[in-house]
Amino acid sequence: MSFKSITSTQNSYIKQIVQLKEKSRERKKTGLFLIEGQRELALALKGDYEIDTLLFYPELISEEQLEQFIPFSNSVIEISKEVFQKLAHRSTTEGIIAVAKSKLHEIEHLRFDKANPLILVAEAPEKPGNIGALLRTADAANVDAVIIANPKTDLYNPNIIRSSVGGVFTTQIATGSTSEIIAYLKQNSINIYCAALQASVEYHTQDYTKSTAIVVGTEADGLTSEWLEASTQNIIIPMQGEIDSMNVSVAAGILIFETKRQRDFK
Amino acid sequence: MSFKSITSTQNSYIKQIVQLKEKSRERKKTGLFLIEGQRELALALKGDYEIDTLLFYPELISEEQLEQFIPFSNSVIEISKEVFQKLAHRSTTEGIIAVAKSKLHEIEHLRFDKANPLILVAEAPEKPGNIGALLRTADAANVDAVIIANPKTDLYNPNIIRSSVGGVFTTQIATGSTSEIIAYLKQNSINIYCAALQASVEYHTQDYTKSTAIVVGTEADGLTSEWLEASTQNIIIPMQGEIDSMNVSVAAGILIFETKRQRDFK
Repeated sequence: MSFKSITSTQNSYIKQIVQLKEKSRERKKTGLFLIEGQRELALALKGDYEIDTLLFYPELISEEQLEQFIPFSNSVIEISKEVFQKLAHRSTTEGIIAVAKSKLHEIEHLRFDKANPLILVAEAPEKPGNIGALLRTADAANVDAVIIANPKTDLYNPNIIRSSVGGVFTTQIATGSTSEIIAYLKQNSINIYCAALQASVEYHTQDYTKSTAIVVGTEADGLTSEWLEASTQNIIIPMQGEIDSMNVSVAAGILIFETKRQRDFK
Repeated sequence: MSFKSITSTQNSYIKQIVQLKEKSRERKKTGLFLIEGQRELALALKGDYEIDTLLFYPELISEEQLEQFIPFSNSVIEISKEVFQKLAHRSTTEGIIAVAKSKLHEIEHLRFDKANPLILVAEAPEKPGNIGALLRTADAANVDAVIIANPKTDLYNPNIIRSSVGGVFTTQIATGSTSEIIAYLKQNSINIYCAALQASVEYHTQDYTKSTAIVVGTEADGLTSEWLEASTQNIIIPMQGEIDSMNVSVAAGILIFETKRQRDFK
């Protein structure tokens, strides 16, 4: 096969792509973002993401590997080592970068295929690594949706994609303001369990077999009062050591898997 | 109060301390390591660590804050901004760095105050961030010991101390070879539950109320066959998404808190 080829890092299209990698504003403006790596790209296709352009560096990907992605791409471009290194976020492995179309993540688009959905809500998470870890856990537990309230960063930040190991593509995600999300959960009679210190009971005493949202805040600030007022019940993980906080992705994992255990992992 | 003062980063003692910060070999050779930050230092003192020298930068710590640490230190040195910045691993907060004596972490020194101890074992964890996260979870759950099998890094790596938020000081820790540790667990009739894919049952089906070791390997390689052969029962966290692995500290959190739940958090 032969494809259009770009060898210069000064090429104007390549410069545009660098902007997509580096700037949240550019991703928002264009509705495009980058996916790097074969595994991540495969997960994005499974998650019905549309690929605009596929860029590959032939030294690092076989024709056979490349071919599986071609039918899903509007255009395919061969790039040189220099261009690949300029675009790649990770060390030069896997030889593939895709320009993909972002989704809207509107809360009214959420769809559930069961009567008692399980939702993980994170309010204003800041670190891409934490968001990625939450999404990875959400994938493992196959939660019905993840909702990010008052997001501080766009979902297509390369560090989120990388630290989620592609989990950002495999779970239904919505974003919105805390007020919108609370209204949505109440309208849909979804119980709200806020991980919080105030007026809380130990997490394992509650019944999570009905429609459930587990809501976590940041390690530094916890949840805003809006959530605490809307809470069905505040829950706490008993802390029995000397340190008074937990990593938010570990805490979310413990809470989510307790709900799964109660649901017999169905 | 007035103390001996060092203002030059070229001072030979300061150069020695920089070595402690940067080199595992130097920490091992001298049996000394650095503790940075008031919270971490307070936790180390609670954990019976001995402080050799206390270095403080007066702009960032009040006399009152400093005084609580002085009785526990053999010597106290005032340092300049330049020296503090040279030594500090983190951004310039809290104004205090201690040179402390490391512990031996020998497995025969482990002591349990209950008949059915709960132990977290990690085999060959590599990333300091992961080790720190495991120790932080171990503190939260107040496990009776953490054992590191075939350690790849020394416990007093500044990144471990930082990412454990001081949890490295609050939990009893032993290190040793996998064979030694297996022998120890068997001698003490401690059930061995290996997190592994092979011949495993879902983790929540097991009874963890007796003496229990939860054993986790690395994300990349899992556990060695030695562990799998010694296992009382292999356990697995049901993975219901598209990604086939979990962050090791999240997985350990889920397993450890299931054992705690079964023990009614006692």
